[in-house]
Amino acid sequence: MSQTWWLNACRPVAADMREQALARQQQLTKPAGSLGRLEQLAVELAGLQGQLKPSVQQLWIAIFAGDHGVVAEGISAYPQAVTGQMLLNFVSGGAAISVLARQLDARLEVIDLGTATLEQELPGVRHLHIGRGTANFAEVPAMTAEQGQQALQAGRDSVLRAREAGTQLFIGGEMGIGNTTAASALASVLLGCAASELTGPGTGLDAQGVQHKAAVIERARVTHAGLADDPLQQLFCFGGFEIAALVGAYLACAQEGVAVLVDGFICTVAALTAVRINPGCRAWLFFGHRGAEPGHRRVLAELEAEPLLELGLRLGEGSGAALAVPLLRLACDLHGQMATFAEAAVADRPA
Amino acid sequence: MSQTWWLNACRPVAADMREQALARQQQLTKPAGSLGRLEQLAVELAGLQGQLKPSVQQLWIAIFAGDHGVVAEGISAYPQAVTGQMLLNFVSGGAAISVLARQLDARLEVIDLGTATLEQELPGVRHLHIGRGTANFAEVPAMTAEQGQQALQAGRDSVLRAREAGTQLFIGGEMGIGNTTAASALASVLLGCAASELTGPGTGLDAQGVQHKAAVIERARVTHAGLADDPLQQLFCFGGFEIAALVGAYLACAQEGVAVLVDGFICTVAALTAVRINPGCRAWLFFGHRGAEPGHRRVLAELEAEPLLELGLRLGEGSGAALAVPLLRLACDLHGQMATFAEAAVADRPA
Repeated sequence: MSQTWWLNACRPVAADMREQALARQQQLTKPAGSLGRLEQLAVELAGLQGQLKPSVQQLWIAIFAGDHGVVAEGISAYPQAVTGQMLLNFVSGGAAISVLARQLDARLEVIDLGTATLEQELPGVRHLHIGRGTANFAEVPAMTAEQGQQALQAGRDSVLRAREAGTQLFIGGEMGIGNTTAASALASVLLGCAASELTGPGTGLDAQGVQHKAAVIERARVTHAGLADDPLQQLFCFGGFEIAALVGAYLACAQEGVAVLVDGFICTVAALTAVRINPGCRAWLFFGHRGAEPGHRRVLAELEAEPLLELGLRLGEGSGAALAVPLLRLACDLHGQMATFAEAAVADRPA
Repeated sequence: MSQTWWLNACRPVAADMREQALARQQQLTKPAGSLGRLEQLAVELAGLQGQLKPSVQQLWIAIFAGDHGVVAEGISAYPQAVTGQMLLNFVSGGAAISVLARQLDARLEVIDLGTATLEQELPGVRHLHIGRGTANFAEVPAMTAEQGQQALQAGRDSVLRAREAGTQLFIGGEMGIGNTTAASALASVLLGCAASELTGPGTGLDAQGVQHKAAVIERARVTHAGLADDPLQQLFCFGGFEIAALVGAYLACAQEGVAVLVDGFICTVAALTAVRINPGCRAWLFFGHRGAEPGHRRVLAELEAEPLLELGLRLGEGSGAALAVPLLRLACDLHGQMATFAEAAVADRPA
């Protein structure tokens, strides 16, 4: 393993297969372009997978969890113990993403990078013990470089297991009380914009709470004003273990040739970080859901990303991406199984 | 059968079950409201089905096809023979809706209400022979009252078969070269607005073609200026056999207690007609996809309908509704299978 594996080249798109898939779309028994974005999805997946008829049946969902020292600033509506409690709920099958993974026939992996309150390991969860949550980034960097690299590698390791299992589509989810604050801080630094432009209610703050959250982030940005303009340093200073793991996972997916469906705000900030570190990974990223958090829209725009759904979700856990999986699958089914005009003896429009 | 069955009362919503479902949503292990519109979908379905844990696994898709005399005015990019050719494609499994029905494990029924060019009946298609297409509404009413009532009844008959088969969700699709012109004309009459505000490219007209289409509709409105302000008369004068069948199907669904997922522009115009005829049916209608046709947005707004998807589709066949089915199913799965805070021993937010 290279010390800087995250800079390794991403897998190139098979341009010839993309062209062949585009030509096939023109021959299917429908007015040209009438399947809208589904046509484009199938064509892009064909280029990524190097297959005229791509498939995303084999789905892997990895939930990355971690706690956040910044909760000491009173920025979350929920107690920190919920992070650990939800880990149990994920593996017990009662969480939203557990239900979705079951219905979508996905492999669900739950990875605890470092939580603050869990007293014992849980069967079915991978506990990595990178730390008892991050440090409070309002005062000191959230993690050391060593912790950050461990978290990146944890994301990559999940992707290597996924690829070994034949995964065709990877979803990363996250759980961590306080992580919309970390994601908003990281996004404000990456985009160079005021925290107040990005900060929203997360899982349930009121207006005063949102203001306080933005103020905490602004104070932290002053504290770390001397930080290098480097996305990796910015990630380690303001991010969370689970956010760094998502960054590592997205980069590894692009290097290993596994398409990604990115979830909501926190995942999208991780995706922007990954693209800043290694721009070649952008081609491998699809986006599931546009949420209400104001920062999400801003970060999506920066990535020129157009999510498939907009349903007012603000849960995380990978749920917004999981809900978009049937669209990708049906796009592949339509592309692969529809008859051509010649096969069906249907008249195409007069030339 | 009453001569005016379409005016019979629609099934009322079970308000108590709706309340119980809403209470259940508040107890599931997620921040309140964080599943956005999926929560509301599950709650509404609970009220419609009178079940705390509703289901839409049993899916019925009926494709209604008919030809349109108004094609004589040169308003379509495709030859009229395509209507009949596509009927064969539907039952052969090569059309978009055939692929979607198979993947969604739906019953697919194909009903030819009256086509102009088919010389023989096709195995697997129900041929009703209401006419060899409608008359050209630019000159005379599209159909007689007898033809219109036959078409309404054809839609209702499909719903009665669907209900008999245990259907929990009904999708009506349509096929008919020229039918965006008929739908635009009907919508302009129902809404009392200029055809140019509603008319779009359909399956592929250029700007000049769109202008011509609007002009044909305006001329027809002058021709039929003496028509009564009655939605049924307006349907028979400007609509198509397949549009009338959709109207009948939606009304019958609401009367028989089967939830409906409405497809694109033409189906939405049929839905508006149904609501104008019998307003109680509105509660039974969900909307799958917001298309690009300008009239679609206008008619959706009139119905206060918020479709689940917006993917640039303009195919018809029920495809936009079919693509939204997984969202309804997953909404039900989440509602029915997630753990409550009490079951999972997860802390809800401090009171």
